[in-house]
Amino acid sequence: MRYHKIPDETVRRLPVYLRVLLACRRQGQEKLSSQDMAEPSGVNPWQIRKDFSYFGALGTRGVGYDIEKLARQIKKILKLDIVRKAALVGVGNLGSAVLAYPGFEIYGFDIAAAFDADPGKIGKKIKGIVIEDVSNLRGLGARKIELGIIAVPREAAQQTADALVGAGVKGILNFSPCYITVPKKVKVITIDIAMDLARLPYYMPAS
Amino acid sequence: MRYHKIPDETVRRLPVYLRVLLACRRQGQEKLSSQDMAEPSGVNPWQIRKDFSYFGALGTRGVGYDIEKLARQIKKILKLDIVRKAALVGVGNLGSAVLAYPGFEIYGFDIAAAFDADPGKIGKKIKGIVIEDVSNLRGLGARKIELGIIAVPREAAQQTADALVGAGVKGILNFSPCYITVPKKVKVITIDIAMDLARLPYYMPAS
Repeated sequence: MRYHKIPDETVRRLPVYLRVLLACRRQGQEKLSSQDMAEPSGVNPWQIRKDFSYFGALGTRGVGYDIEKLARQIKKILKLDIVRKAALVGVGNLGSAVLAYPGFEIYGFDIAAAFDADPGKIGKKIKGIVIEDVSNLRGLGARKIELGIIAVPREAAQQTADALVGAGVKGILNFSPCYITVPKKVKVITIDIAMDLARLPYYMPAS
Repeated sequence: MRYHKIPDETVRRLPVYLRVLLACRRQGQEKLSSQDMAEPSGVNPWQIRKDFSYFGALGTRGVGYDIEKLARQIKKILKLDIVRKAALVGVGNLGSAVLAYPGFEIYGFDIAAAFDADPGKIGKKIKGIVIEDVSNLRGLGARKIELGIIAVPREAAQQTADALVGAGVKGILNFSPCYITVPKKVKVITIDIAMDLARLPYYMPAS
């Protein structure tokens, strides 16, 4: 089955739903209605039902969705049904926060390697991962690492992206506040933490 | 003029466009077409034109949009046309990365205060800001700080949110990977850095 017609905005919400579903499952729940999911996901019930309808997930009226089944479907669509290895480049404050972040595992991510250019950091261990010299990046391909996370200063972002692409990485999460260029076959998602703050005042009541 | 009919997804993209516009202005450009904006913003030209049409911004065929005017309009819609003060709570790795992040200023944000519970950090200065005891949060209201940024461990997120709301904060950017409850008048945006990574495999070519 192919899922080519799912809009990007729905894809953006699927991880949100998945997190809510997995949290409810951990609490022993088995069914969940779109109404129940609305508050924790921050999405309207009708939008939730519409999003799920793109891949044929139908809830039962008065009962809701089967949590286990729906979580499995979403994981499959997002291609998160296998463990995916990621490499982090840049172990400064942000990179260290990424390494310590407890939320990657639930999506099946394994941050399997970390790199830095600072000789003072290379060889040190954070969360069980030994920080490697960034010049070792080219060996990544042999280690089945498909994802790269860029947490280096802005000036080094493009060359880091080039090195990751050269090592065969197919997806990059970029935390540097700049635009990086990669070949078409590689997908980049840039996170600008300031940009999320920039949406807040719009929703705030006038003073 | 009221702008109530702008969809949330458009509001999400407006800061992206604003960043692109400001970057081009810094480079001395005056006009920009939706085609020019497509690549750096990662949004299709037709979607860009549609987004701008919600607030009546019309480009001139063959010339494009007036950068200065469009940037001003977007800032006004996002209520970013005045400097907004924010307080950061939690100066660990992530909080330190937030303080060091160069991207807040361009949207008119001033991170004016930082708080932590660790006596070893209180009194220290990062980027010109003296870290205060988190118990001082209640005095925030008098300092005209409207926004809060939560970068504390998950266990402390809700009590931090309560303290920020108690101090009169109207918008919260939450980096803790958990759901926090606030009164309806307060807007919360939760950032889960793992969630953005969770969208990547969907777009990656099959191995």
